[in-house]
Amino acid sequence: MSTQKENCGGLEWRLTVSDGSSEALAPDRSKIYRVWLWVHGLAITLKLMIWNSIEKIWKLGADDPRRAVHGLKVGIALSVVSLFYYVRPLYNGIGGTAMWAVMTVVVVFEFSVGATLSKGLNRGMATLLAGSLALGVHSVASQFGEKTEPVVLVIAVFLTASSATFSRFIPTIKRRFDYGITIFILTFSLVTVSGFRVEKLVEMAHQRLSTIAIGGSMCMIVSMLVFPVWAGEDLHLLITRNIEKLGDSLHGSMVEYFSEGEDDTGDDEPCKKLQAYKCVLNSKATEESLANFARWEPAHGQFGFWHPWKQYLKIGTTLRYCACCIEALNASINSEIKAPESAKKYLSVTCSKLSSQCSSVLKELARTTKTMTKSSSIDFSVEEMKSTVEDLRNTLKSLPDHLTHQQEQTPQLEAKEEAMQPLSTTVPLFEVLPLVTISSLLLEIAARVEAVVSAIEELADLASFNLANDEKPKKNQPVSNLPPKQQEQDDAVRAIQLV
Amino acid sequence: MSTQKENCGGLEWRLTVSDGSSEALAPDRSKIYRVWLWVHGLAITLKLMIWNSIEKIWKLGADDPRRAVHGLKVGIALSVVSLFYYVRPLYNGIGGTAMWAVMTVVVVFEFSVGATLSKGLNRGMATLLAGSLALGVHSVASQFGEKTEPVVLVIAVFLTASSATFSRFIPTIKRRFDYGITIFILTFSLVTVSGFRVEKLVEMAHQRLSTIAIGGSMCMIVSMLVFPVWAGEDLHLLITRNIEKLGDSLHGSMVEYFSEGEDDTGDDEPCKKLQAYKCVLNSKATEESLANFARWEPAHGQFGFWHPWKQYLKIGTTLRYCACCIEALNASINSEIKAPESAKKYLSVTCSKLSSQCSSVLKELARTTKTMTKSSSIDFSVEEMKSTVEDLRNTLKSLPDHLTHQQEQTPQLEAKEEAMQPLSTTVPLFEVLPLVTISSLLLEIAARVEAVVSAIEELADLASFNLANDEKPKKNQPVSNLPPKQQEQDDAVRAIQLV
Repeated sequence: MSTQKENCGGLEWRLTVSDGSSEALAPDRSKIYRVWLWVHGLAITLKLMIWNSIEKIWKLGADDPRRAVHGLKVGIALSVVSLFYYVRPLYNGIGGTAMWAVMTVVVVFEFSVGATLSKGLNRGMATLLAGSLALGVHSVASQFGEKTEPVVLVIAVFLTASSATFSRFIPTIKRRFDYGITIFILTFSLVTVSGFRVEKLVEMAHQRLSTIAIGGSMCMIVSMLVFPVWAGEDLHLLITRNIEKLGDSLHGSMVEYFSEGEDDTGDDEPCKKLQAYKCVLNSKATEESLANFARWEPAHGQFGFWHPWKQYLKIGTTLRYCACCIEALNASINSEIKAPESAKKYLSVTCSKLSSQCSSVLKELARTTKTMTKSSSIDFSVEEMKSTVEDLRNTLKSLPDHLTHQQEQTPQLEAKEEAMQPLSTTVPLFEVLPLVTISSLLLEIAARVEAVVSAIEELADLASFNLANDEKPKKNQPVSNLPPKQQEQDDAVRAIQLV
Repeated sequence: MSTQKENCGGLEWRLTVSDGSSEALAPDRSKIYRVWLWVHGLAITLKLMIWNSIEKIWKLGADDPRRAVHGLKVGIALSVVSLFYYVRPLYNGIGGTAMWAVMTVVVVFEFSVGATLSKGLNRGMATLLAGSLALGVHSVASQFGEKTEPVVLVIAVFLTASSATFSRFIPTIKRRFDYGITIFILTFSLVTVSGFRVEKLVEMAHQRLSTIAIGGSMCMIVSMLVFPVWAGEDLHLLITRNIEKLGDSLHGSMVEYFSEGEDDTGDDEPCKKLQAYKCVLNSKATEESLANFARWEPAHGQFGFWHPWKQYLKIGTTLRYCACCIEALNASINSEIKAPESAKKYLSVTCSKLSSQCSSVLKELARTTKTMTKSSSIDFSVEEMKSTVEDLRNTLKSLPDHLTHQQEQTPQLEAKEEAMQPLSTTVPLFEVLPLVTISSLLLEIAARVEAVVSAIEELADLASFNLANDEKPKKNQPVSNLPPKQQEQDDAVRAIQLV
């Protein structure tokens, strides 16, 4: 606020001077003055730009403080490794083994624990493998005599580098061992072309491996112990939030459509919520990379070692299918063809009910996924949703009758006269087109929400979610309404928990 | 084929023996025999697995031979760098400067020219910057005396590493300079903690930079001259293919819907084409990374140095909007509610026409984008599409009349009796629900195709596409039908081309 005042002050002052002061208009001083004005303007622009950048960077850290913490963590790991080499006499200059520890920290330390572990383990394993292979090649090549040896070695480098590079296109290797392959080629080439004797090489390999181990374990320890960022947890949260977003967008858009013009508060917040489904459409790449890293992570928090991360990708796909339909729904909502109020009113109750139920199923799913519990009320909600689907179908079936009835009531006299020509009382199908499309898409969305439900049920089975203890039956849903099997299961679980 | 025969033969032989030979059933030999069978089975399974892997890897190379070529290119670059150090006496072991050239080749050489250039230039610039900064810090720290110097240096490393790591979260930096930041931190840390005198450091920096330059330029030269893979070209092709895929999917689905059961050839190829739009939904990440690399590439082929690669991302977004609607359309096509044949027939002509026109607009767009020419016929096609949109609207408006008319014609006698109750002749709206939804979505798709058209027109302007010389007016589209402005423009261009 103060900056803005200052800036305004600067501009005002400039204007005041050029208006009021006669001295400033003197020809000899005007050039200097204009230069001064230019410099002053430049300074203000620069100041604004810097201020804007600072604000953006601050927002970046404020939005997710883990980012700033990550910076500090890398700083700490790197300083400790450097200090280690100041204190210990192991250290012998840039070319020595010291650099491998520093290099490992810089290259391996990633934002999430999974990414750090993936890179660290890849680096360690690849160095070990490539080193052993290169030693073997070296001892074979040394049998060929001094002149042929380099040729054999270069051929070995060519073949290994070519085939290893090609192997990176194999999807599984690309996904999990891409960095490992780089390090494999690197180590193999460096050791092969080194020209040292095998004994010397073994000693160097030992040194290099131990420094890599020091750097790597430093990264892993700091990454896991100092405010750890788990890729798995992030994936879990991302999916949960995406489910919530779909629920918000869906119900929000429908409420807005049916209450159009009724309460236009001009608030930006709901508008943001309505567009939230778009994030879901674009989150595939993030989900895949998080799932990929999550598989490297040890058990943490609620997540076991064999947590079914792949299932999250399946859930993500079902969510995107839903989001696609919501996108099409929004297109119909924003259609220029305005449906007649009577038709809108006739469908609004059932449509709003269905969208609200889809939305609450989604929210219940988000809640159970977040808390990793099996919800016993989800089956009810789905059944309710299904029955509203039937209601909507019936309402759609009776819509033409309603519309013709409406038409008849309005021009009652004329209708009576033309009663012999029933063709005149047809439905204004074209005007209700967006409305009908919206209803039809809602039915499709309900079907897709069911797909999300079953994907999450599969996750609940795979990850053995617990039944929620505090699960209270919803209003109007007495416990006796539970399907017999579900009831038995619940009772059995409660009995076990009591024992 | 021969493998399959062999395998079958192996299995057959086993069965023959266990059935026919009485000797094989003797109890003392049966154990050995069972072990033998087990080993034999294992061998066959292994053979099959290896064969499958080889087949998959072969397919990987056959699908895009540039992958195999890339492997060879990396092999060549690495061998040449190794050879260089065998021939020249510059080379002095693993710890020496030689390794930086090898390391640079391994780390920098990427599949596309853009990615290689991006990494190479990032590496070079970051090394230069970080080296200079570290030298400065070093000379400042050396003023502090022997005991305080390490503390100052470690603090410098901590601050630089932390802030540089944090800066990676800034989207622009993440996108374009992520690798540079890694190398910056690496070089800065290595030089700062090295403990050498400044003079020695300058000498080392010189050596290191020159070896990095050798490695980097080797990568760039091989990458650009030996069967270059241009990220820009790939992006261009990807977008073109995606446009084609949308056209194929859209028209294919509609044809299949309206000719359902008429000619079911059971061919897989069309089914694949119908699902092609799904690729478009998932290509955002690829598009972004290709556009990112393309910006580093020099002018090549049809693409100038300032080719508007960003515009391709915009086109990609409009395509995904289209694909979303096609996804919803497919859901309606596969709906369980079957529309009455008469209604289907009534709409089929206009719907098929519209989908075919949308598809041909998309294909025309793909063609003009591929050849980088401005099509003069696209305006006609769009106008035709728009007029069919109007036709479809009118057909939809008259659909209720048609349906009630149909209803009346079938039970003619009853209708006559009930003529006083016009309510009985209402439209079976529910049965035509998917059909109406399909039509409504088609209208929306046509609108979204128009958005694609304008995004590509923007590209044509930004990249100054030429007007096609061989552009022939389509049948039924005499040249005089051109809008006056377009006609003038065309004539002017032709006049210029004749001069």
